[in-house]
Amino acid sequence: MAFNLLKGKKGIIFGALNDMSIAWKVAEKAHEEGAEFTLSNTPVALRLGNLDELSEKTGSMIIPADATSVEDLEEVFEKSMEKLGGKIDFLLHSIGMSPNVRKGLTYDALDYKNFHKTLDISSLSFHKILQVARKLDAINEWGSVVALSYVAAQRTLYGYNDMADAKALLESIARSFGYIYGRDKKIRVNTISQSPTRTTAGSGVKGIDTLIDFTERMSPLCNADAEDCANYCVTLFSDLTRKVTMQNLFHDGGFSSMGMSMRAIKQYNKSFEECP
Amino acid sequence: MAFNLLKGKKGIIFGALNDMSIAWKVAEKAHEEGAEFTLSNTPVALRLGNLDELSEKTGSMIIPADATSVEDLEEVFEKSMEKLGGKIDFLLHSIGMSPNVRKGLTYDALDYKNFHKTLDISSLSFHKILQVARKLDAINEWGSVVALSYVAAQRTLYGYNDMADAKALLESIARSFGYIYGRDKKIRVNTISQSPTRTTAGSGVKGIDTLIDFTERMSPLCNADAEDCANYCVTLFSDLTRKVTMQNLFHDGGFSSMGMSMRAIKQYNKSFEECP
Amino acid sequence: MAFNLLKGKKGIIFGALNDMSIAWKVAEKAHEEGAEFTLSNTPVALRLGNLDELSEKTGSMIIPADATSVEDLEEVFEKSMEKLGGKIDFLLHSIGMSPNVRKGLTYDALDYKNFHKTLDISSLSFHKILQVARKLDAINEWGSVVALSYVAAQRTLYGYNDMADAKALLESIARSFGYIYGRDKKIRVNTISQSPTRTTAGSGVKGIDTLIDFTERMSPLCNADAEDCANYCVTLFSDLTRKVTMQNLFHDGGFSSMGMSMRAIKQYNKSFEECP
Amino acid sequence: MAFNLLKGKKGIIFGALNDMSIAWKVAEKAHEEGAEFTLSNTPVALRLGNLDELSEKTGSMIIPADATSVEDLEEVFEKSMEKLGGKIDFLLHSIGMSPNVRKGLTYDALDYKNFHKTLDISSLSFHKILQVARKLDAINEWGSVVALSYVAAQRTLYGYNDMADAKALLESIARSFGYIYGRDKKIRVNTISQSPTRTTAGSGVKGIDTLIDFTERMSPLCNADAEDCANYCVTLFSDLTRKVTMQNLFHDGGFSSMGMSMRAIKQYNKSFEECP
Repeated sequence: MAFNLLKGKKGIIFGALNDMSIAWKVAEKAHEEGAEFTLSNTPVALRLGNLDELSEKTGSMIIPADATSVEDLEEVFEKSMEKLGGKIDFLLHSIGMSPNVRKGLTYDALDYKNFHKTLDISSLSFHKILQVARKLDAINEWGSVVALSYVAAQRTLYGYNDMADAKALLESIARSFGYIYGRDKKIRVNTISQSPTRTTAGSGVKGIDTLIDFTERMSPLCNADAEDCANYCVTLFSDLTRKVTMQNLFHDGGFSSMGMSMRAIKQYNKSFEECP
Repeated sequence: MAFNLLKGKKGIIFGALNDMSIAWKVAEKAHEEGAEFTLSNTPVALRLGNLDELSEKTGSMIIPADATSVEDLEEVFEKSMEKLGGKIDFLLHSIGMSPNVRKGLTYDALDYKNFHKTLDISSLSFHKILQVARKLDAINEWGSVVALSYVAAQRTLYGYNDMADAKALLESIARSFGYIYGRDKKIRVNTISQSPTRTTAGSGVKGIDTLIDFTERMSPLCNADAEDCANYCVTLFSDLTRKVTMQNLFHDGGFSSMGMSMRAIKQYNKSFEECP
Repeated sequence: MAFNLLKGKKGIIFGALNDMSIAWKVAEKAHEEGAEFTLSNTPVALRLGNLDELSEKTGSMIIPADATSVEDLEEVFEKSMEKLGGKIDFLLHSIGMSPNVRKGLTYDALDYKNFHKTLDISSLSFHKILQVARKLDAINEWGSVVALSYVAAQRTLYGYNDMADAKALLESIARSFGYIYGRDKKIRVNTISQSPTRTTAGSGVKGIDTLIDFTERMSPLCNADAEDCANYCVTLFSDLTRKVTMQNLFHDGGFSSMGMSMRAIKQYNKSFEECP
Repeated sequence: MAFNLLKGKKGIIFGALNDMSIAWKVAEKAHEEGAEFTLSNTPVALRLGNLDELSEKTGSMIIPADATSVEDLEEVFEKSMEKLGGKIDFLLHSIGMSPNVRKGLTYDALDYKNFHKTLDISSLSFHKILQVARKLDAINEWGSVVALSYVAAQRTLYGYNDMADAKALLESIARSFGYIYGRDKKIRVNTISQSPTRTTAGSGVKGIDTLIDFTERMSPLCNADAEDCANYCVTLFSDLTRKVTMQNLFHDGGFSSMGMSMRAIKQYNKSFEECP
């Protein structure tokens, strides 16, 4: 199905790595829905992933950038506007990384340089993108900005570590900047709090498989996958959601509103069964 | 703009009265987007409003029903399925009324028969609709059900009275039934928490004009109106939001995430100015 | 330990049945802390439980009352003020019952007379108590009112049924009346959202044992029990919490802020182990 | 009134500057309630304020420390344990500062070194305190840790700038560390979200006077002041609240649960009156 929902719209998509990435699926869907956009990721990610394939498929220019560098971001916006022939209408932030998690440091033995890096990469990068966009006046009125978040911003999950704090900060930045950008330019800023997803990034989280099994059984509609998320993003980029802003929108098959499901408690119950 | 987002979809829309109604706008938009549906409201509302006009415009059958009557609701679903030629895909609940508010009783002097009526009309009617639909198996898999709510469910507003409690109950019913309907039939149930809107119903609320002025200045994107809400509903009825369920979705120009805006505080400040 | 935190304070405690009841523990603690109070429960509960024992132990008068009857409640307040020699300072509402749950009706096959009863007993009784107190001017300035709630008001739990909706309504009533009573009389109204507790009432909930095991492993401080809750109530009745109002206060060992704990996921993992 | 609620308890209080500080009032109350503690603040603050007076009054040692320095914090804990003769039972974090706010940079023109400093001082300092305490095993089982926050963590306030993000991060750290410290050592970690307060720090916020007038009229119990907050802290440090953890507790006279009050809307209405 394709509806031309984003016909004539221009955008920038940050954070696609490979075809497991949510940002990758968003790019594919946005393309199907008639949008033009540029793609950005770090030079390292460009080597690790296969963004060329996506670039070709969707006719999108790739602009390498370190999203913690204001200079790099300025280049992303300038080149994007040049390539796309004007201001953009939508933007996706799908960026997150914790050096503390990578190095296996537990939350009560964090390295603080790493902690600042986690926040810089996963949260402040979003502020930098917005501040650069605002300075360059790079987004059209009624434009839409989305960043991907996770329920760890509200509830503690074993092993999610300082990424939980980074997501809480990210959601706060979305609100804070959403106020200013809405007031001044009618631009909306939201976060999507997505089900745990088997992306390359997600795979780094401790015990991700059991967690995904648990949330699958807890969520009445099962976990939302990357493609579901891409569909949802398209609605948020479209003109049909113009008055939704400063929100954290759960896209998780109902998980966030569940206390205990029949399926999960039945499975849990099995843990007490004794072998014959 | 029209995208055929609801092409081939069938629905039922409860609560349209006149062209100020949110439900009226939803019907118009759903029609533009390719949906077929039936319209339902109480016999009294049918006399007061001009639903015939909407019926004609959208080619929709009107089925009079008291939404607190299980029998009436059964008829609505049966006739709808007959008319539309099968199960439905979406449903809007835009129903609310407080006899206590109508009679000017304050919240510390409520009549309890009235309180039960407020809850029966504004909240339990939603459960009845869902329970009847479930019993008759009247909604297709991946169908979408939306009810309209208000931020009074979370925060107390002077004069909103027992309607605040009714909305809190409504949102809880959406979660509770959303779990069951999601688990069993992949049907999602959400509420939209809409800006204060100048509908015929809204006009009954004490001091609605000042309140609307205040929320207009507080909300970075200004208040969402009935047409904005209709656009948003269309995305929630579409197949692009399949994994969103059991959520209360604020559609309010950012109001719910604001503590104090520049525009509102400037206006408030004027209240202290003395005349020369 | 006893601190005389409630010395000179008078109160009414609704809902003690036997020594497993939270209300019973609250009465004991309040007595230890120097308070005087009356006890109220339904005539049926008085026969089933052994409130006489508590009455004797704490020197408290028992006033039988159906908390859904405004007349009965008027009597409770009048007799209490007479017995205690003046207005009261604190009040506990620990009342809840669902005929739908009792009769084993599932949430998609509710009887609506029962649903209204669930709400009348578990939620509107709280409004009635407050409205009667307000009319009789029965609570001193800076008095404190607490009702017991449960996380089901925010998150759906399999089997908790229409009690979830009743708790959501209860918490809304606490906010709505808390505004009025605070503004007019400086009286605060809050709810405590307590861990699942093995009371006589709690035992009726489907699969309560597995649920309690799960929340025990999820909560970093383990479940809060009835005695813990009584201690917490004492602080809310004391003069040290005068500016806390219209809040739902989680008292649950951290459960409400957890997404997944190490202990719970380890146990869950065992459910997949195969027998040798 | 004094109840000996903290008799025999030892603690550390960070952030008292002068007798307008919340931390100052907490120290006074904790002293009245029988606690012993040390006081810590930065060398600069020690010069600006008059902590000596508090030190003398409460018999507390002052330990100068930069709360962003792990080394300094280690010294605070070591000296405190030495002085107090053992592990501590409670801790208050009342630390926050934004160089961006100080320099008048607006939220869409932030300096990122400053932003990191805001977070380091106002949020990461809390993690550092907890991590140092955990490493040194400096807090007794069932100890209680409280940090002061503000509703800006949830709702955007004009002019509050990057301090809003810092508070959101602070509350997330309280949850994340609260899980670990609760699970391992039965220590609880909470934040209090306090009314806007006329402290030396608070005075820096743009338009604080109008804001305080507005929240005063919005809150049914009026704003909570520093002394009210100190009373509330005492209950959270006491043994009566052992199962409350990972919570953000609003202590604000009801403000956080208000949408619009009679008093505020009346005042707002005056802003539209024309001079005769």
